[in-house]
Amino acid sequence: MALVVQKYGGTSVGSTERIAAVAEKVMATRSQGHDVIVVVSAMSGETNRLVALANSIADPPNAREFDVLLATGEQVTISLLSMALEARGCRARSYTGAQVHILTDNVHTKARILEIDDQRIRADLAQGRVVVVAGFQGIDAEGNITTLGRGGSDTTAVALAAALNGSECQIYTDVDGVYTTDPRVVPDARRLDKMCFEEMLEMASLGSKVLQIRSVEFASKYNVPLRVLSSFIEGPGTLIAPEDETMEQALISGIAFNRDEAKLTRVGVEDKPGIAAHILGHIADANIEVDMIVQNVGADGTTDFTFTVHRNDYQNAFSILENHVKALGSGEVRGDEHIVKISLVGVGMRSHAGIASTMFKALADEGINIQMISTSEIKISVVVHEKYLELGVRTLHAAFGLEQAA
Amino acid sequence: MALVVQKYGGTSVGSTERIAAVAEKVMATRSQGHDVIVVVSAMSGETNRLVALANSIADPPNAREFDVLLATGEQVTISLLSMALEARGCRARSYTGAQVHILTDNVHTKARILEIDDQRIRADLAQGRVVVVAGFQGIDAEGNITTLGRGGSDTTAVALAAALNGSECQIYTDVDGVYTTDPRVVPDARRLDKMCFEEMLEMASLGSKVLQIRSVEFASKYNVPLRVLSSFIEGPGTLIAPEDETMEQALISGIAFNRDEAKLTRVGVEDKPGIAAHILGHIADANIEVDMIVQNVGADGTTDFTFTVHRNDYQNAFSILENHVKALGSGEVRGDEHIVKISLVGVGMRSHAGIASTMFKALADEGINIQMISTSEIKISVVVHEKYLELGVRTLHAAFGLEQAA
Repeated sequence: MALVVQKYGGTSVGSTERIAAVAEKVMATRSQGHDVIVVVSAMSGETNRLVALANSIADPPNAREFDVLLATGEQVTISLLSMALEARGCRARSYTGAQVHILTDNVHTKARILEIDDQRIRADLAQGRVVVVAGFQGIDAEGNITTLGRGGSDTTAVALAAALNGSECQIYTDVDGVYTTDPRVVPDARRLDKMCFEEMLEMASLGSKVLQIRSVEFASKYNVPLRVLSSFIEGPGTLIAPEDETMEQALISGIAFNRDEAKLTRVGVEDKPGIAAHILGHIADANIEVDMIVQNVGADGTTDFTFTVHRNDYQNAFSILENHVKALGSGEVRGDEHIVKISLVGVGMRSHAGIASTMFKALADEGINIQMISTSEIKISVVVHEKYLELGVRTLHAAFGLEQAA
Repeated sequence: MALVVQKYGGTSVGSTERIAAVAEKVMATRSQGHDVIVVVSAMSGETNRLVALANSIADPPNAREFDVLLATGEQVTISLLSMALEARGCRARSYTGAQVHILTDNVHTKARILEIDDQRIRADLAQGRVVVVAGFQGIDAEGNITTLGRGGSDTTAVALAAALNGSECQIYTDVDGVYTTDPRVVPDARRLDKMCFEEMLEMASLGSKVLQIRSVEFASKYNVPLRVLSSFIEGPGTLIAPEDETMEQALISGIAFNRDEAKLTRVGVEDKPGIAAHILGHIADANIEVDMIVQNVGADGTTDFTFTVHRNDYQNAFSILENHVKALGSGEVRGDEHIVKISLVGVGMRSHAGIASTMFKALADEGINIQMISTSEIKISVVVHEKYLELGVRTLHAAFGLEQAA
């Protein structure tokens, strides 16, 4: 008998019919002999309704009170799911974040979990109850209600699995797993049976938004195996777990891409220490997040410094660089909003030198010009013109044989 | 500087516009130099919405979970009102029942308040904050969320006023006070400036449903002055307070009436001890509440035993009496659904013997036949044919000069 934590998102509990279906799923897991803790989000649409109420009262609403308001969303779901379980003869108890002392810091609307009191939950599990916990919420040391921000329910589920030493944290969502790439771009895309945390982190941060990056980091830190499954389609989903030997076989797990980037280049920067930090300092001061950074030393003692930002920040970043040019009285700024980033991700690439050349050759064979390259231990990203996104992803998916299991 | 507890019901907080208006009212009280604790109900319609959700999931829903669900209604209101106050520059903090430890017994859906932890509230008041508390809810000793049942928010308000030694507990509602009788029946009916708890209890239990009887009992027990006011019309409302000398001047405070009663008579009961208890025992076993009871000893050694019940229980009670007659093989049952009860209420009648005769004469002058009479220290009730309701109430209102202040 194992302890399983299951998390159901807003769409999965979006109506009383769907909540009834979740109850059946939970009971099926119980009938396999497992203890079950269920974490639920607010019913889809509910959070928007509450936000609209708040905005019609105050703009911006007081953050402490906003959390008190939003926390009611999950409280509604935990009670309804527990009722559905009890009505089916399955003993269940709901708990708000406060009731199981999900202690957080006091940063309202994006608090971080510090500690969970598992005593009450353990007592209920020992008595054969399903424990239903409100995701996304906690309390600070003074008893104020806090919320965890985007993806908070995933984080709650992982934290509970960690605190109670669960064998698996199952994240039920509207997709049936993590794919080698977006099936809308590559119809051949394959659901991955298994991947490691590092791969998932690279996939998530690159735009495969199945799981929030924070919950993956959390799961990785506490070694909690995560499984992404569909609430609507039966299937094993994708297991995201610590790296093991069997994983080494796959060179590449998947191909992530990001359509939201824009590129800026500061041309003719004097090649001396501190210049890059100086330029990025201005960008950071404006609260603009930088993704890729590339710098090449030129032959003439100057260098071109290039980086990418979110397209929404492009105009702002461009102005900052222009001011910098004006202040120095030399150099030039170039920019391009029509770029995309494509990334190969896979722990296997660590020990295989040929990945990059295979990637670059495959793209070159299709006449796709690479504008920037950036690499990490388990990832190679390239920036190309946006018109090549689909072609590039499909080309790489085929080149690495991702449509077939490793 | 005094401490005032204000309670706003569902209609008073029924929209974000009305919540904004409540914020203004609270700030007006603050600006008079008072500390303010505000207790709010769920926005009107919200509780019905939640109940419908629960009923579509389970019938009946689990009581513990039903309370978890319903408690979200007030939590939404406390956060919105606190936001409205903060947005207007008035420091405020919301608290759920759990957060200020409104400790109750564990009878879900109709829990009773045992204790309130006033420490946190006092600290906020000392720092110049308005404290906004969710009505209707608490927690039991194990931390489970409980609700107080009908009129629960009034009870919360009174309990807070008692625990924090408030100078007054103001109940804002959709009427501007307690009237000498229903103004729809007597256009001359007058708003009472002041009445005592005992009078209010008799008025409330007799159908003047301005305040829930439980909250009046609670206020009486802890000597908390209550004031009934309108959220929508400015005015002093009606103060309900411990009896004092000035109150003695008014013989009669008001006239209550009840259209929902029916009368049953067990004719020809053997006049010996225990018979009345025996008959009422069968009625009580069927969960039927009995209001008035009258018995007269006859000359022939038998007696007629008459009582009134709610009209909904009439048929059921009639069958029970008929079975009783059959079992004994003697006697008869008579019933009448076309009756109403009219009651004079006033602490002043204790010391004035003439009240009853004035009442009976006034009714007789209009040809109104009295079918039953029942009296208590501060109340005289008569049962008459339902066609005489309006005439009877108007006649008595005029006979005792209630249209004029005492």
